[in-house]
Amino acid sequence: MIPAQDAIAKLSRALGGSDAAALAAAALVEADAMGQPRFGISMLDEWTPDASPPPLVDGSRAVAWLDCTDSFAPLAVASATLDLAQTAKQLGIGAVFLRGVRGFGRFAPFLRPLADSGLIALAGAEGPPFVAPHGGTRPVVGTNPLAFAMGRGDDSVIIDAASSSMTMADIRSARAEDKRLPAGSAVDAAGAPTNVAADVAALLPRGGQIGSLLGLVVELMAGVAAGGRGDPKGRGVFLVAIDPTVAAEETGWQDKLAALRNDWTGARGHWPRGGGLAPDATLDDDFRDRLDAYLGKMPPEAGGAQ
Amino acid sequence: MIPAQDAIAKLSRALGGSDAAALAAAALVEADAMGQPRFGISMLDEWTPDASPPPLVDGSRAVAWLDCTDSFAPLAVASATLDLAQTAKQLGIGAVFLRGVRGFGRFAPFLRPLADSGLIALAGAEGPPFVAPHGGTRPVVGTNPLAFAMGRGDDSVIIDAASSSMTMADIRSARAEDKRLPAGSAVDAAGAPTNVAADVAALLPRGGQIGSLLGLVVELMAGVAAGGRGDPKGRGVFLVAIDPTVAAEETGWQDKLAALRNDWTGARGHWPRGGGLAPDATLDDDFRDRLDAYLGKMPPEAGGAQ
Repeated sequence: MIPAQDAIAKLSRALGGSDAAALAAAALVEADAMGQPRFGISMLDEWTPDASPPPLVDGSRAVAWLDCTDSFAPLAVASATLDLAQTAKQLGIGAVFLRGVRGFGRFAPFLRPLADSGLIALAGAEGPPFVAPHGGTRPVVGTNPLAFAMGRGDDSVIIDAASSSMTMADIRSARAEDKRLPAGSAVDAAGAPTNVAADVAALLPRGGQIGSLLGLVVELMAGVAAGGRGDPKGRGVFLVAIDPTVAAEETGWQDKLAALRNDWTGARGHWPRGGGLAPDATLDDDFRDRLDAYLGKMPPEAGGAQ
Repeated sequence: MIPAQDAIAKLSRALGGSDAAALAAAALVEADAMGQPRFGISMLDEWTPDASPPPLVDGSRAVAWLDCTDSFAPLAVASATLDLAQTAKQLGIGAVFLRGVRGFGRFAPFLRPLADSGLIALAGAEGPPFVAPHGGTRPVVGTNPLAFAMGRGDDSVIIDAASSSMTMADIRSARAEDKRLPAGSAVDAAGAPTNVAADVAALLPRGGQIGSLLGLVVELMAGVAAGGRGDPKGRGVFLVAIDPTVAAEETGWQDKLAALRNDWTGARGHWPRGGGLAPDATLDDDFRDRLDAYLGKMPPEAGGAQ
C-alpha cells in the first residue's frame, strides 16, 4: 500500500518539482486511484530522459499555439493549463492550442485547478481517426472528448464527454475477452454494423448525429485550429479559460450555479464532478511497484521540467 | 414575389440602417427563404418602437457581459457579434455573454460573418426549462443549441446543433396535427416515456447522455456564466471568437480544414453549412405581405438602432 499523496510527491519530484510537475503527477495518480490505469502512470511509458521542458505560454498574448512534440505530454498539458489560468486572470479570457501532444490521461484533473480558482474552462482533444461521421462508413476523427469545468466545492461541475460510442481501448478489451460489442457502436470495413471486435473498421459517434457534430467541433478546434490533425504520434488539444469574476454581481453566477445543481439533481440528473482523489486515498502494492519501476528510470536531475 | 435582397434592404432600413441592422435583417429573411418561418420575420412580433439600441461591447476588454432586456433581440445579437469580431481581431480572442435575449432566430447567419472574416466562432443559447436531464424526470434546461463556424468559401462549416430531441414548437405542431411523437423524445408528468404530445411534461435530450451533457455545458455558459437562467422572458447567450491568423503558418489550418472536409464527405459524412441565401433568392407574396405589415408599424425614425 502507498498513500496517494506520497506517490504524487515522489512522481512530482521526478518530473522536476515544478507546479506543473505536481499537477501532472496528481493527474496520473488520480486515474490509477479511480481504477482507470489506462490513463494513469502508464503514461510514463512515453517519458524519456531527453524530453524538452514544456513550452511556455507568452502571457502578454491572450491566445497561444504551442508545439509539444518533444515534451512529456502530461507535463506539457499541466504547464499550459497553469499558464492559461494566469492569462485568463489577467486578460479575462485566454486560449491555448497544443499540437504534438501524446497521451496525457484524463482532462478532469487538469481543469479542476482552473475551476477551483474561479475560472470557467472548456477543452477538447482530437486523436487518430477511429470514428466515422454519423451515417458514414470510414473513420475520420478521433474519439474527441469535450471537457468543461466550473465552480468550487459542492457546486463544482467537471464534464468530460467522449464523442464516440466506445474507445479503441474498449475494442481491444472486447477482442481480448472475446466479448460482443453493444449494438450501434461500430462498423466493419464494408460500412456495415458489426458487434465483432475483430471486424471493427470504424467506431460510431455517441448518440448518433449529435455526437458526430460534437466530434466535428472538437476536430475543428483541436485538429484544425490547433494544427494537430494528421500527426501520427501526437494529438491536438485546445483549452479556453474565462474569468467570470468581473461580472459576478450582475450575473449572480454563483447562486445560479447552486440553483442549477439543485434543479438538475432534483430531477434525477447526474451532476458530473470528474472524479477526484480523497485526501487519504491509498493505492495497492502493485501500483507502488509499477511506480517504483518508473521512478528507477528517472534520474533526479532529469524530468523534462527545469 | 419579392427578391430576398429587397426584403433585407427594406427591413434593414426600418431597423435603423446600421451594419447590425443589415445583419439582423439578413438573418431573419434567410430563415423565411429556407422555409423556417418560425425563425424568420415573425421575430418582429417582439419589436417595439421604444426598444433600446443594442448595448455595445467595450472593445478594450476581451470579455463583455450585456443586458439585452430592453433591446430587439436579433439586433442585439447582430450588434454583439459584429463588436465581438472587432475584439477578436484586435486581441486574438473575445467573448460576449448576453442575458435578457428574446427570440433571435437561428445562430448560423449571425456567425457566418465571423467565419467569412477568418475567425472561429463558438456560441450557445439557453432558454426556458423544457428538457429533462438524461435519466431524469422533470424539465431543467432549454433546448440549448451549440453553434460553431469556421472557414470561408467551399470549406466553410457552420454547425448549429440543438441538444434536445425535439423543440416545444415540434410538440405544439404534433399536438395540432394529432401526430404521435418519435419514441424516446419526451416524458409525461410521472416521468414515464410518452408519444402523446398533450401529455408531454419534459423533452428528452438528443442522443441520450451526450446530448444531456452538451445541454448542461450550454446551460452553464449561457444560463450561469451569462446570467440568463431563470429569466421568464429572456434567454442567455454566449459567443466566443478566436483569430487563428497569427498561427496560420505553423498550424496550416486552412489546408487542414480543406483536407478534413474531403475526408468527412468522402466517408459519407454530412458537412454542415448552416443554410444560406442564394443571391437571387425570392420570397412569395404571402411573405411580402407579412413583411409589409410589420414595416407599416415601424416608423422610419424608430428602429432601436441609432
